[in-house]
Amino acid sequence: MERTLINALSASVGNTVLVQGFVSVRRDQGKLVFFDIRDRSGSVQGVVLPKSAAMEAAKEVRPEWVVSVEGKVNKRPEKNINEKVQNGDIELEILALTVLSKAKELPFELGVETNLDTYFDYMPYTLRSERAKRVFKVQETIIASFREALKKEQFTEFQAPVLVGADAEGGAAAFPVEYYYDQKAYLATSPQLYKQVMVGVYERAFATPKVFRAEKHSTSRHLPEYTSLDFEMGFIKDHTDVMRVLEHMVRHVVAEVGAVHGVEAPRIPAAIPVLKLREAQKILNVSEEPDLEPEHERAICEWAKKEHDSDFVFITHYPVSKRPFYTYEDENDPGYTKSFDLLFRGLEVTTGGQRIHDHDLLLERIHGRGLKAENFSFYLQTFKYGMPPHGGSATGLERFTARLLELANVKEATLFPRDLNRIDSLLSTDES
Amino acid sequence: MERTLINALSASVGNTVLVQGFVSVRRDQGKLVFFDIRDRSGSVQGVVLPKSAAMEAAKEVRPEWVVSVEGKVNKRPEKNINEKVQNGDIELEILALTVLSKAKELPFELGVETNLDTYFDYMPYTLRSERAKRVFKVQETIIASFREALKKEQFTEFQAPVLVGADAEGGAAAFPVEYYYDQKAYLATSPQLYKQVMVGVYERAFATPKVFRAEKHSTSRHLPEYTSLDFEMGFIKDHTDVMRVLEHMVRHVVAEVGAVHGVEAPRIPAAIPVLKLREAQKILNVSEEPDLEPEHERAICEWAKKEHDSDFVFITHYPVSKRPFYTYEDENDPGYTKSFDLLFRGLEVTTGGQRIHDHDLLLERIHGRGLKAENFSFYLQTFKYGMPPHGGSATGLERFTARLLELANVKEATLFPRDLNRIDSLLSTDES
Repeated sequence: MERTLINALSASVGNTVLVQGFVSVRRDQGKLVFFDIRDRSGSVQGVVLPKSAAMEAAKEVRPEWVVSVEGKVNKRPEKNINEKVQNGDIELEILALTVLSKAKELPFELGVETNLDTYFDYMPYTLRSERAKRVFKVQETIIASFREALKKEQFTEFQAPVLVGADAEGGAAAFPVEYYYDQKAYLATSPQLYKQVMVGVYERAFATPKVFRAEKHSTSRHLPEYTSLDFEMGFIKDHTDVMRVLEHMVRHVVAEVGAVHGVEAPRIPAAIPVLKLREAQKILNVSEEPDLEPEHERAICEWAKKEHDSDFVFITHYPVSKRPFYTYEDENDPGYTKSFDLLFRGLEVTTGGQRIHDHDLLLERIHGRGLKAENFSFYLQTFKYGMPPHGGSATGLERFTARLLELANVKEATLFPRDLNRIDSLLSTDES
Repeated sequence: MERTLINALSASVGNTVLVQGFVSVRRDQGKLVFFDIRDRSGSVQGVVLPKSAAMEAAKEVRPEWVVSVEGKVNKRPEKNINEKVQNGDIELEILALTVLSKAKELPFELGVETNLDTYFDYMPYTLRSERAKRVFKVQETIIASFREALKKEQFTEFQAPVLVGADAEGGAAAFPVEYYYDQKAYLATSPQLYKQVMVGVYERAFATPKVFRAEKHSTSRHLPEYTSLDFEMGFIKDHTDVMRVLEHMVRHVVAEVGAVHGVEAPRIPAAIPVLKLREAQKILNVSEEPDLEPEHERAICEWAKKEHDSDFVFITHYPVSKRPFYTYEDENDPGYTKSFDLLFRGLEVTTGGQRIHDHDLLLERIHGRGLKAENFSFYLQTFKYGMPPHGGSATGLERFTARLLELANVKEATLFPRDLNRIDSLLSTDES
């Protein structure tokens, strides 16, 4: 018999079908045994009647066992209909049951609240909860609609490299890799230099690579490995062209997530408020530091919500000293850059700006930062051989997911989060 | 004035427009200066007439300079129409020209044949050729249509980790990474173990991660960093269910690449021929080795082409000893596995099969290979807590691209290929 997916059962009332899935819940009522079976399409209640040939097997079955059942799809009597759940109007009368895989004793019931460490320790199991499954379905929609929004704007997707020859931005710490012949390579902290190369090729390019940051952060917003939603575009007037494409993308993403998953859309007014860093600091009545502290990011987001009914706010014009060497200085505001961060519900989720496109100026900035020009000779070719004014941005997929779903820790929006002490399991510092 | 994209010019005959792009070719005929300008949408011929205010600037302009021009779109006189090129019936009469970026002296003309090393040395420049641009547009379509084919079959996309705690498959050499606190991590050689975890979660899952192989290969088919098109699915009968989904995906991909880029589709008969490894060896009249040598892969593909008019051939039933520990042994053919490779025009592009889903058997196989079970404790949870029969496959994006476009070296289908001696630029073994 061909397998029937659970979300198609209601069209098979009266028929005998083959259903395969995981047992979610089992209720042994002595003469009757009930269990919920789930497959990729949903969940249904099964019942084993006293004389069923499946009774012996059914008595043995436990949650997370994988089963193949033949059953008859019955309408439930009126009084047993539950309109709030999928298949609440039908029931699968189980005629035969084969166990495909037994589960050993479960550490705890699936879906119960645990502390985060336990959730991560048992991730192959805890990811099966409806709550976790939803987080990563939402994340799938975010990345798919990111691509969709940019493809509509004629961006070309490319595969950015992970192994790089040097810590390119010269700011973020990079993990060293033992490459061939005792040579050192590094894990890319960003696809920045490559997406600029791709502007020379396709004018508009995007990538969604894994990037790596070796700083010893242990916070609710940092990850050593994360997914970066990067785009870069040529022939811009200035950074505001980039902000416009970014805003357009964000609107598309939150609309799609709302449509597909019923996630309430964050507030985005007709125009996301834009403040220079110094203006934000004045509003918050704090001193002119080169960057916003996390509590100031939260406070300016509260301001944006209150004053503009916006869950997003752009902060622009970070000082030259605080941004990477390739950042474009604003000729009308010397010392400050045509750069921006996008804050979302209290957290920086995107950083971007216009980049320097003049070869000689770029070289001057590399020298000015004390970086070695040799490390950039490949990249510099892009500018040597003609490059339009351009800019772009990078959005942290996990941060964006976490803020959209209002998860407290970015690790909850990461499938297999790494941190200082964990790669899947806790690392032991005693063995190497 | 708003910018007009070059592919929209033919709708603007008689109008004055703003065009921005790269100069491709320039022909100075003394009184007249012609140049081709390209942007992301295409190319057009511009002409500077003797009395144009742009003449002085036009005399200076060189290939790869980036320009912003105002010009009038004119119909070409009948005798100058070239129907074979885009915009061959119009010409842009340049009225004003601003140089946005000058290029320094070019190493060679764009698009000329060079040896591969020179092509890679100058990649930020050589990628701008129409030939290279096409390769990576085709690659973009391959990856997009891979996702599309699987989403239609209800697979969930996930982001597989790159940093792993151990060389999981215990076969392919992994690059070590200096992680926090003097601990070692590794670069994933495959997302295999994670996609099996995801089968427990979503039943059907796919990912397109970068993977890394540290073996010292220097061939036309190996890369230390490449993109793997991976999927994994639960509730299969055996490996042939996986082969069916793979074949379906391949048909969709080549159809899309044909439709979008006009690439002639490879030959795929109603059913791709399937041979057990031993059958293939008998056909080739070679001894029963545990794997096919590269020349045998080419020879069996020639056979498939000749006998079945197929550019693809499946080879199944590799011996247990030759496949990873998680491979499912065929109960009807002991010593051989429910595994397969897909060969495409002489090269293995995909490997896959059914996996062991029984926890205790899997543990036995891990021990049997002399691997440490502790290294797999996270992964083994998946099987401890119930797992359906499942399988999947992994296709090398660059290999698939290379065979589809009949490029001799897989590096030509890699955007920024790394090899033993190169990460962008050639590595020097004298400095670390």
